[in-house]
Amino acid sequence: MTDTTAPPVSVLGLGPMGTALATAFLAAGHRTTIWNRTPGRAAALADRGATPATTVAAAVAASPLIVACVRDHAALRGVLDLTGADWTGRTLVNLCSGRPDEARAFATWAGEHGIAYLDGAILTPTPTIGTDAGTVLYSGPDELFSVHRPTLAALGGRAVYLGGDPGRAAAYEMALLDLFATAVHGIAHSFALARAEQIAPTDLAPYARGIGGLLPEMIDRAARQLQAGEFPGEVSTIGSAATAIRHVTETARAHELDTGALDAMLALVDRAVAAGHGDAGLGRLALSVPR
Amino acid sequence: MTDTTAPPVSVLGLGPMGTALATAFLAAGHRTTIWNRTPGRAAALADRGATPATTVAAAVAASPLIVACVRDHAALRGVLDLTGADWTGRTLVNLCSGRPDEARAFATWAGEHGIAYLDGAILTPTPTIGTDAGTVLYSGPDELFSVHRPTLAALGGRAVYLGGDPGRAAAYEMALLDLFATAVHGIAHSFALARAEQIAPTDLAPYARGIGGLLPEMIDRAARQLQAGEFPGEVSTIGSAATAIRHVTETARAHELDTGALDAMLALVDRAVAAGHGDAGLGRLALSVPR
Repeated sequence: MTDTTAPPVSVLGLGPMGTALATAFLAAGHRTTIWNRTPGRAAALADRGATPATTVAAAVAASPLIVACVRDHAALRGVLDLTGADWTGRTLVNLCSGRPDEARAFATWAGEHGIAYLDGAILTPTPTIGTDAGTVLYSGPDELFSVHRPTLAALGGRAVYLGGDPGRAAAYEMALLDLFATAVHGIAHSFALARAEQIAPTDLAPYARGIGGLLPEMIDRAARQLQAGEFPGEVSTIGSAATAIRHVTETARAHELDTGALDAMLALVDRAVAAGHGDAGLGRLALSVPR
Repeated sequence: MTDTTAPPVSVLGLGPMGTALATAFLAAGHRTTIWNRTPGRAAALADRGATPATTVAAAVAASPLIVACVRDHAALRGVLDLTGADWTGRTLVNLCSGRPDEARAFATWAGEHGIAYLDGAILTPTPTIGTDAGTVLYSGPDELFSVHRPTLAALGGRAVYLGGDPGRAAAYEMALLDLFATAVHGIAHSFALARAEQIAPTDLAPYARGIGGLLPEMIDRAARQLQAGEFPGEVSTIGSAATAIRHVTETARAHELDTGALDAMLALVDRAVAAGHGDAGLGRLALSVPR
């Protein structure tokens, strides 16, 4: 139900994430205007009360806050370049995934075109948007974030402002996606190795889940160690990990599976040991990543 | 305190994990004999009631169950080869980390030398040993596991028997270490990328922890999808991940960080997309790992 005191908002891009964003704004009572390059996607949202706009200019005219979530920064530039929209009094929040340098370049471009600009990074998957678990980071001018924070709060429990550098949210996103992408590769490779050993996926899963469950505590410990610059090997050491990783790499190679990620880990561990950090905790590895 | 009804047990190898094993046996009331190549490590355990043996033969003579945890299978072969121990009525449980083929070869060797043999794999770190969270997998003759299960139960809440193939426990261990090693590399690389972007480790950690927390559910979903052979892209698709992973790889490369693991993930994702699985869920990636 629309709350007449809630500011209107427009959403550009109705992929799975854009749809989740629009749904969350609607649920929080905002009059929500939607636009997608392919109009078909708007129907379900229109049934829930959203107003489809036929042009980007119309979507910009409809609301003081325009939230964009299309494929990437280049696609968004393409969309915005084509319009004759009047951005006076409007703020663009760019939630497209991208590199920090792209975010900074977009902010410069927006400034040159008189568009007030915030960059953002969505850290959690579509089902979390609009729930307490939803996490979105923002960076750019603090006065823009202050004005639009109440509207952006509709997207989830954690709307975090990271400061004036427009690339800051993207920098966090890249570091976190690095972890996510590498860990997902580990999951895929683990199931592939299990398959080669005739272990059923659901037989492995309870133990794999347990391994996954160790990571949050490891992350906290690594962060504390990195912050302190001290790496006691209380729980496990780089040196003791080296032997095990070598066994895994050999096992994967014996099954003729690609070992690119394991080779990278082994190289990192060997490099740390060679530099005299064999007795250090695993958190020390972050300082040995080869350049 | 020693329980006179609990069978005695001997522990070969007193590194951090061997020490944890001996400590857990002592805590459960087993008369515990300990041996290490370097005798100095036995002192603290002796203070807690363990009996140091000066030779492997004496440690074998002291107990019906001998639990070994040294550097690797080759090291254990070296230790056992040197002894004139009488293994009659004794069972060796080999908890050294190693490949499945090494475990099978060790079982064959043990059989040739009249040593009753179980292979095992410890899945959880030293602090969990002897607690409900401690998880150790075993494979080999089921009659041996049945006899010694009450003693092995001292090591933790989950003592799991995986069947007669002596390589089975090691196969699970390798698949799980694959996940662990790759994920730990992801943590290290994530902090390295954050460092290059001047993000403090403890600023990144709460979000990284959140990413880590997504993995157990992803693992379960991937296992269900792999078991069913169906990969609905409800939460996130391989195709949508590809763009983000490309951004991360470019960002890491711009900071001159090694991108071996990210390159491997990008190659996997691109391969799956090229094979027509762009709309599939991430679980499908396990079937596309290059050989």
